[in-house]
Amino acid sequence: MAEAVDYRALIADDMAHVEALMREVVPGQSRALTEAIHHVLDSGGKRLRPTLTLLVCASYGTARAEQVWSLAAAVEMLHTATLVHDDLIDESLLRRGMPTINAMWSPGATVLTGDFLFARAAELAANTDNIRVITSFAQTLTVIVNGEIEQMFKGRGAWPSLEEYYARINAKTGVLFGMATGSAAILSGADDDAVRGLTEFGRHFGMAFQIVDDVLDIVGTAEQLGKPAGQDVAMGLVTLPVIHFARYHPDHPGLVALRNGERLNGESVAGLVSAIRESEAVRDALGDARRLVSDGADNLRFLPNGPHRRALEYLSELIVNRKF
Amino acid sequence: MAEAVDYRALIADDMAHVEALMREVVPGQSRALTEAIHHVLDSGGKRLRPTLTLLVCASYGTARAEQVWSLAAAVEMLHTATLVHDDLIDESLLRRGMPTINAMWSPGATVLTGDFLFARAAELAANTDNIRVITSFAQTLTVIVNGEIEQMFKGRGAWPSLEEYYARINAKTGVLFGMATGSAAILSGADDDAVRGLTEFGRHFGMAFQIVDDVLDIVGTAEQLGKPAGQDVAMGLVTLPVIHFARYHPDHPGLVALRNGERLNGESVAGLVSAIRESEAVRDALGDARRLVSDGADNLRFLPNGPHRRALEYLSELIVNRKF
Repeated sequence: MAEAVDYRALIADDMAHVEALMREVVPGQSRALTEAIHHVLDSGGKRLRPTLTLLVCASYGTARAEQVWSLAAAVEMLHTATLVHDDLIDESLLRRGMPTINAMWSPGATVLTGDFLFARAAELAANTDNIRVITSFAQTLTVIVNGEIEQMFKGRGAWPSLEEYYARINAKTGVLFGMATGSAAILSGADDDAVRGLTEFGRHFGMAFQIVDDVLDIVGTAEQLGKPAGQDVAMGLVTLPVIHFARYHPDHPGLVALRNGERLNGESVAGLVSAIRESEAVRDALGDARRLVSDGADNLRFLPNGPHRRALEYLSELIVNRKF
Repeated sequence: MAEAVDYRALIADDMAHVEALMREVVPGQSRALTEAIHHVLDSGGKRLRPTLTLLVCASYGTARAEQVWSLAAAVEMLHTATLVHDDLIDESLLRRGMPTINAMWSPGATVLTGDFLFARAAELAANTDNIRVITSFAQTLTVIVNGEIEQMFKGRGAWPSLEEYYARINAKTGVLFGMATGSAAILSGADDDAVRGLTEFGRHFGMAFQIVDDVLDIVGTAEQLGKPAGQDVAMGLVTLPVIHFARYHPDHPGLVALRNGERLNGESVAGLVSAIRESEAVRDALGDARRLVSDGADNLRFLPNGPHRRALEYLSELIVNRKF
């Protein structure tokens, strides 16, 4: 076990700058828009992506502070933009226990709020003043959106192979975490091997984070999740714990319905969720997440030894043991 | 009158490269998405923005071809992305006589298609390899989206002053045309005065283009427009010909209804449209567009004399005399 590190304290000053950048208002910015953006930014995101960016940069200690803050803010704004559009697409009314933009505004206003966040994220990325980082930012957005489109066209009843599941969570979560850490290495002037290694660290971290998210959707309480449990299953989304469960109980009626592309009612969702909870599937999925994050963390060897690297090691364990 | 120039022939080879870049497929790109994008790109856009970029760059003859193509493609992709989201927001089913993505796909798939086009546009902008251009690209997107949000929150019954009208068409159309020409000057290594001047040329050109668009919505036939006439009025949007008409006939019942934020029925729209057609308002608005574009074209003095500059002079007259 890695030693507990107060990673927030290590980067508190930098994070304050990142928060300020994300909240910056452009000339003539609509007041309602500003309020909506602050509402989204205030609704309790963990700021994991910028935390990784700041810790990698602080570990090297070579990048210019303004560039680092811009990168960290760009990554979190991009993430926030995708959340706003996702909530519209999934018709979600709650996120982290707070009403979504989608719940408060028309679809048109929600689309434009997401677009505005994309635009601001692109401005922040441009402010890193580094073409390689900007290119990586744009490519990452392409991969994320393409992954979502692919998922949408597959629709209900498409049973993913493990490989397809990993490809999906890579596009959904892995690549942006990988960009957060890889671009931090680029700004720090790291060599190509280190950039590749730290990209892999972030990508593995992100995928493990997503697996834990998928597990929490099964084992979490509505209070912990800020939304009802079993949402993925209810939407017909087959995640890793479900894939593992299918190996143990291939004929579970909820599973059969899912495989046939049927829409599960509340009772069927609850039945399937509790069956998965009682199986070994959750343990299996968490084991996969631990292996992923531990494989990725090998790449932390590229970083100078010190408190920031130890914080990243600690965080790697923390995210697979988190309860929310 | 400027001499007629076959401007398309001057840049045909470059434009073929630009078209190819816009249609480039990323690894793993969903096939349905590719078809949708080709459908949008094929539906008869005039490619005015990349035409201006290519003519400015060809006039200087100093920028690297790959950078120029990337810029031209980035500008048109950004424009295309905004159209896809606009059609969703306005619930438009037809554009240029062809079904919109919105008419063919779910709102979610339409949002993601627009997002994908934004991402690809950002990648193309990054490929210009020029931080100033990339920054200008991102700032332009911010201004466009902020303008749309402002417009949305104003809603029906908000009667714009002339200044507000111009601010709206500047955000909607002016800034992207300005970016298309200003960034072309940047890539060509022009000095700051020339960059400013050519940005102003594009911005004025774009605003004049938008005024003519607004006029055509009143005077055009459904066949010319690819959609019914009077759409702006039907949506409660007050454009320049309407503002001029209000000076002549402040008490026209259609106008009063518009001012009160009422939704006009088909008959009222047709009545107002035909009253505006018979008034001097159309001539006034076109006069404003001519003055704008002519003011802007003064800045073409920054370009070396030659066929490309003459083509830009010719285009400036063409767009205020166009019928579709």
